[in-house]
Amino acid sequence: MTDRRFDVTAIGNAIVDVIADAGDDFLDAQGMHKGGMRLIDEAEATRLYAAMGPAREESGGSAANTVAGLASLGQRAAFIGQLGTDQLGAIFSHDIRSLGVAFDTPAKDGIGATARCLILVTPDAQRTMNTFLGAAQMLGPEAVDAALIAESKILYLEGYLWDPEAPRLAMRKAIAAARSAGTRVAFTLSDSFVVDRHRDDLNALFDAGSIDILFANEDEALALTGASDFDSAITAIAARVPTAVVTRSVNGAVAVRSGERASVPAEPIERLVDTTGAGDLFAAGFLAGEARGLGLEASLRLGAIAAAEVIQHYGARPESNLRVLAGALLEA
Amino acid sequence: MTDRRFDVTAIGNAIVDVIADAGDDFLDAQGMHKGGMRLIDEAEATRLYAAMGPAREESGGSAANTVAGLASLGQRAAFIGQLGTDQLGAIFSHDIRSLGVAFDTPAKDGIGATARCLILVTPDAQRTMNTFLGAAQMLGPEAVDAALIAESKILYLEGYLWDPEAPRLAMRKAIAAARSAGTRVAFTLSDSFVVDRHRDDLNALFDAGSIDILFANEDEALALTGASDFDSAITAIAARVPTAVVTRSVNGAVAVRSGERASVPAEPIERLVDTTGAGDLFAAGFLAGEARGLGLEASLRLGAIAAAEVIQHYGARPESNLRVLAGALLEA
Repeated sequence: MTDRRFDVTAIGNAIVDVIADAGDDFLDAQGMHKGGMRLIDEAEATRLYAAMGPAREESGGSAANTVAGLASLGQRAAFIGQLGTDQLGAIFSHDIRSLGVAFDTPAKDGIGATARCLILVTPDAQRTMNTFLGAAQMLGPEAVDAALIAESKILYLEGYLWDPEAPRLAMRKAIAAARSAGTRVAFTLSDSFVVDRHRDDLNALFDAGSIDILFANEDEALALTGASDFDSAITAIAARVPTAVVTRSVNGAVAVRSGERASVPAEPIERLVDTTGAGDLFAAGFLAGEARGLGLEASLRLGAIAAAEVIQHYGARPESNLRVLAGALLEA
Repeated sequence: MTDRRFDVTAIGNAIVDVIADAGDDFLDAQGMHKGGMRLIDEAEATRLYAAMGPAREESGGSAANTVAGLASLGQRAAFIGQLGTDQLGAIFSHDIRSLGVAFDTPAKDGIGATARCLILVTPDAQRTMNTFLGAAQMLGPEAVDAALIAESKILYLEGYLWDPEAPRLAMRKAIAAARSAGTRVAFTLSDSFVVDRHRDDLNALFDAGSIDILFANEDEALALTGASDFDSAITAIAARVPTAVVTRSVNGAVAVRSGERASVPAEPIERLVDTTGAGDLFAAGFLAGEARGLGLEASLRLGAIAAAEVIQHYGARPESNLRVLAGALLEA
């Protein structure tokens, strides 16, 4: 597989983040659940934006953040996602391409505005997300190039996009292309609402052997398995997918593959600023390790290093060169 | 004057900043003069943007940053500036209004895209600016509401806008409105290119008694007066305008009024990150002091405090509450 053109091709929401500071009182007044993600329509996006404080705009999107992390780690990555033909779309395209990521999904007219995620960061560094999906949820199977998937070592799928119908069809097409080309398929559950709405569907996918690597955080792992504790949850997941990776925030992460179990503590940090992107960057580090064939423990450590970088500043994409931060791990 | 509705009404470029890190080699390859500002057309803006790394977008504009600083200091401010009818324009409007600044200039169709400033931040924290003015330079006299000026203690004019013709006419109209309403007029030279292109014009403005407070940095002061040293320059400026304020970067700032001369050192900082907005925020602090009638030295200190805050993080608008940082100075 070393001669494939890309290490990872990801399919995800093409989103611009709109990030503002907010107090707990603002979240309460808006009836928001701190730390959560909720989908909102355009009218609510407009209303909430008007109520928010001054913001900065940065490209985001869960899987797109992951490919940004992969690029920073020196991996070759491609991205598939749907934009509208507007200025926010132009910002997203510029940012991802300027990282050296291949991104060629044509923006489309008449399918709604480019997606945006209104992110409120509270003084405790937690982020509360309000996502207007707009054009992003109109990603259809025609956007998936089977040849691109076949030229990638790993296909990475963002669970958020399993919820709307068109992108789910696009991801099913991509999975089929991956299976016939010997491309490994990685999937992140993204959020427990995705699990709650698609549990049977997702389990069928796992049982069909369609997913090689599954990423979940602790909440999602419990939601998926119905287990009451972490160890039971990871055991249940590991029985269903060849490689299971579960992140546990300050408690580090665990991976299980073919009876092998590895775990890492969270990487020490100087100052927690904004947890946005922690899971996305953890996936970037882990996938970089997988693409290099480094083994579970080294891959987990790369994940922890990448996640630690992104939570020490505002925004969901790395600001430092992760390849330098990873140091000896990537010279192996 | 204490019953006026606004402390400061500012006229300036309505710009969104597009901020990216860059190495010195990138600046060299692009033939840019580090630390400078140059005007570029839309084609060059598109070309340069494609060559730049990933960016974050934040509302900017020199005088707009100043009113953001005034709002953070608890002053009542209004802004006049021209936007296009696009997403960047919506971002600018949202950000300035969410600070409590009155901003009612209608966005216009068919006059070009909303202005943007492509800012490259080098590792030494210097910012090199490439400005596409677009809609901003189409600000015309019809946008100036004489009643708004009459309800303001101070009218603040951004020198950058003295260069294009329509905004210069708008500013002349605003000056006339200010003079007849007893509103004080403050002007910032903005850049030595403005001085070089409009020296006679500006001197005529000063000699006509149209400007009460003039802001300049050291380069601009030397360019305006043709003096070879700082002391001669400030003496020459002080002979032409009632209040002269000259900033000197790490060497603090000096103000002269009616024979009184005051100076302050630069405020100590922990870490220099990005000098973007330093002059804009200095003006905010000084104008807040003037609006409160605090006197030269206290006004200079407020300027130094506001400038010190903004250079310790990326971006040109305050992230901390300047009113809190100013503390006892504002309780006087």
